[in-house]
Amino acid sequence: MKMTNESEEEKPIDMEFKLKAALKCSGSLSGEMDPSEIEKFVTSCNTDLLRRGAPPGCGAEIVKWNVAKDKIELKIVSDRFVRAHDALLRVKKELGKLLGKHRIGIRGIEIEKYKIALEWKAEGELKIHKLPFVKEIKQEKERLELLLDVDESALDKRIPDRLIRLVEDKRDAARWKGKSEHWELLFESDKKPFLFDKDPTEEMLQRDWIQHAAGRGQYIYGPQLTRIFRALEKILLDEILMPLGYKEMIFPKFVAWDVWKRSGHAKGIYPEAYYVCTPKTRDPEYWEDVMDYFKVTNEVPVDMIMGKIENVGGMCYAQCPPFWVFLQGKILANETLPITVFDRSGTSYRYESGGLHGIERLDEFHRVEIVWIGNKQQTIAHSKELREMYRHIFNDILDIEWREAWVTPWFMAQEGKAGLAELKEVGTVDYEAVLPYSDKWLEFQNVSVNGDKYPKGFSVKLQSGEELWSGCSGVGLERWAAVFLAQKGLDTENWPEKFKTIVGELPEVFKFL
Amino acid sequence: MKMTNESEEEKPIDMEFKLKAALKCSGSLSGEMDPSEIEKFVTSCNTDLLRRGAPPGCGAEIVKWNVAKDKIELKIVSDRFVRAHDALLRVKKELGKLLGKHRIGIRGIEIEKYKIALEWKAEGELKIHKLPFVKEIKQEKERLELLLDVDESALDKRIPDRLIRLVEDKRDAARWKGKSEHWELLFESDKKPFLFDKDPTEEMLQRDWIQHAAGRGQYIYGPQLTRIFRALEKILLDEILMPLGYKEMIFPKFVAWDVWKRSGHAKGIYPEAYYVCTPKTRDPEYWEDVMDYFKVTNEVPVDMIMGKIENVGGMCYAQCPPFWVFLQGKILANETLPITVFDRSGTSYRYESGGLHGIERLDEFHRVEIVWIGNKQQTIAHSKELREMYRHIFNDILDIEWREAWVTPWFMAQEGKAGLAELKEVGTVDYEAVLPYSDKWLEFQNVSVNGDKYPKGFSVKLQSGEELWSGCSGVGLERWAAVFLAQKGLDTENWPEKFKTIVGELPEVFKFL
Repeated sequence: MKMTNESEEEKPIDMEFKLKAALKCSGSLSGEMDPSEIEKFVTSCNTDLLRRGAPPGCGAEIVKWNVAKDKIELKIVSDRFVRAHDALLRVKKELGKLLGKHRIGIRGIEIEKYKIALEWKAEGELKIHKLPFVKEIKQEKERLELLLDVDESALDKRIPDRLIRLVEDKRDAARWKGKSEHWELLFESDKKPFLFDKDPTEEMLQRDWIQHAAGRGQYIYGPQLTRIFRALEKILLDEILMPLGYKEMIFPKFVAWDVWKRSGHAKGIYPEAYYVCTPKTRDPEYWEDVMDYFKVTNEVPVDMIMGKIENVGGMCYAQCPPFWVFLQGKILANETLPITVFDRSGTSYRYESGGLHGIERLDEFHRVEIVWIGNKQQTIAHSKELREMYRHIFNDILDIEWREAWVTPWFMAQEGKAGLAELKEVGTVDYEAVLPYSDKWLEFQNVSVNGDKYPKGFSVKLQSGEELWSGCSGVGLERWAAVFLAQKGLDTENWPEKFKTIVGELPEVFKFL
Repeated sequence: MKMTNESEEEKPIDMEFKLKAALKCSGSLSGEMDPSEIEKFVTSCNTDLLRRGAPPGCGAEIVKWNVAKDKIELKIVSDRFVRAHDALLRVKKELGKLLGKHRIGIRGIEIEKYKIALEWKAEGELKIHKLPFVKEIKQEKERLELLLDVDESALDKRIPDRLIRLVEDKRDAARWKGKSEHWELLFESDKKPFLFDKDPTEEMLQRDWIQHAAGRGQYIYGPQLTRIFRALEKILLDEILMPLGYKEMIFPKFVAWDVWKRSGHAKGIYPEAYYVCTPKTRDPEYWEDVMDYFKVTNEVPVDMIMGKIENVGGMCYAQCPPFWVFLQGKILANETLPITVFDRSGTSYRYESGGLHGIERLDEFHRVEIVWIGNKQQTIAHSKELREMYRHIFNDILDIEWREAWVTPWFMAQEGKAGLAELKEVGTVDYEAVLPYSDKWLEFQNVSVNGDKYPKGFSVKLQSGEELWSGCSGVGLERWAAVFLAQKGLDTENWPEKFKTIVGELPEVFKFL
């Protein structure tokens, strides 16, 4: 009798692996070895070695073999349990022992042909056109066939297994596609009277509070808006960070690829990243032709430059990943928990979709990033405390209309994954507020419990051995300001008393004719 | 009698221009025009048109001409006064009027050959191997011959003139090469007893105050050093910025090429820049192969990425240039002067030479940038006031051993130019302090009067029409800390009383096993 209800489980997809390969040896085999010896070896592979670990009747099989001079040619077929490439590696190892007795070594593996077929129910219109390490893709109604382009080192790196996982991920992503991200209302503020119905960015441009900068999605902030930003920062410090014992740190703002590999962003950040490249060399002579070209044409030769630089990472996107290098590979003393730190040392970047946006959707923006680390209970409890305190700020100081929702965790969204509604402890709470001028809701802040994601990714452990968790919350100064100014307008006399006092008088510095 | 002492003037270099070109017309000339008409035209060019503006006996001359179907072929030779390419443009214009009477238009210019020869005394070992828009370079003892590769649009852009200026600049640069930059002592503090002889970076690494980040020349700053940075910032604010009425702004940190074209950095920044590239498109499908490659190999395919991004500028290098876009093309009201603003909103980058350095030489660093704008008198007076106040900080609060020197203006150094000792009003004062552990002097700060450089570069004018000047001063937090910690050590009990009070207790957050 089966213990689980099989209909509720996802059936394992059937797979078929067909591999033609040769093991290249250090000397000729034909003279040295009795063919019956190899035949015996193959039989033992098929009855034992290539079935180990697989359910009865399953595993891999050498269906054809041939000895030609210094090569042993093999054809291996298998199911999902001992995949043909794993089978080949097992064979190589065992055969090595056998040949060793004849003073022959195995030099390497040559792969002639490797075909993988998967039982495949494509979701929707998912077509797979191109895959790395794949020469040919045949997609039929319920079957996906991949003709691989791999060598021995690719087998060592487990490329075939990762390929299978990749196509499975693509199928899962297609399942989510079209379905909206998860969104569940947690809290809603009182309705508030709106004092303004214009786009605050437009209004600030007219008043010379801000100017368009030279880059896309980038502004230069004059003294008035900067004063508002600093007031918002002060509220965050006074109401949350100081009372909760947060200490300031300075997180890196250039993010090397290794950080994004560990944080998971290297899976999907590409369409939105601001890439950073460094010179291939600092030798001025190497750059002389670029300088000469500029001096002669007054144009920067960007194509020429592209050949002289190399991509090493990108600019800050999510703010906390590079912080984790501070703890990388370390064991934290129990007594230090919970750890609470924040950073406000620089700019963040997103390559946003084209067209003009206001300060609510920028390529370059400014954020205070808050990080807390503890055991599971501490981390969850801290996130609740934070949420209480944010509620106080939005209700009692900024006096805005806003709401809180449980959404797809930010790190999954940034890795290109869809929402998991079933997550209850790990996940993201988004804060949204309505912009009266457009009647759209804007996400202006979040609080996330990231589970053990970062400690795992950066190999950070706790002295006690207990699981280490973390959370983070990003306060976008432009977003806070966009929401506040959209609802309250730019005239300080209409602002809530408490906030007005914190901001003080807005400085007037520039006057243009 | 000559009014100037000729031996003190630099004699104009003799130049020779030889241009073979054809003017292509909209119809055949041979049938339409009497050859004598063209002959008359050429004579009038040689006696009048191509001599206009040149000293007697100087200018350009058409030495050969020929009409072939719809083309007029010309050979023009000239001296420096009416350069052959200018002569050609004059001829084109005048001939256009003449041909117009025959209802023939000039379609364009075809350049067969253009050779420029300069009298040339190369400095030292200067060899010119390669130049943009030049096919062939012949460098003889006292003569430089350039065979150009230009078309009509290159003439329109004045490429030949800029080429000549470029080689002259190279010669001037070679003259400066080897000579050290200008350096002149202005002030020296009292000798101070040093309390520390170690490298503070090493010591901070050992105490876990900082950790190496994932990028080159990049650290993650823990709570202790961050507290020290914020104390230094507070001193700057309390002692200088607030008393002098400075207002905070937020300057962009990504710098588009257009900014560096206007600031002059596009002339020479290349070997040291951190380049920023953006995706050619934000379409996730365009990036799918990159994501797939990463998912299958766990390696980021940087070469693949390089083909999908484009260079749009770089990260903040000198901090004030992108601020000037705020004022670009504007006219400032007189009453607003002097303008005093500062920025502390993000990181700066320099691709520093290889090897490990401490926090005194970083690829990623943090700086408060101070900018003042006024008429000439205001700007100079303000720089003196600033210097007084800095002196007070270094002597009375930080209590360090330091000195002040008059050096090559920073913007000239950054454009690849050498020092001008003769500048007396425009220029840079560097602040240097000795690092006891290495016995080297470190530049940790500067105060610069930039003259009208930025208002000119960004087309900013003053209501009164008076010349607008500006100055800037960069306070590198890492540099200030490096100097202070190197001289005073990391133990707060040894620090000067005033500074100790401002810093308060250093926070202890992390403890590793």
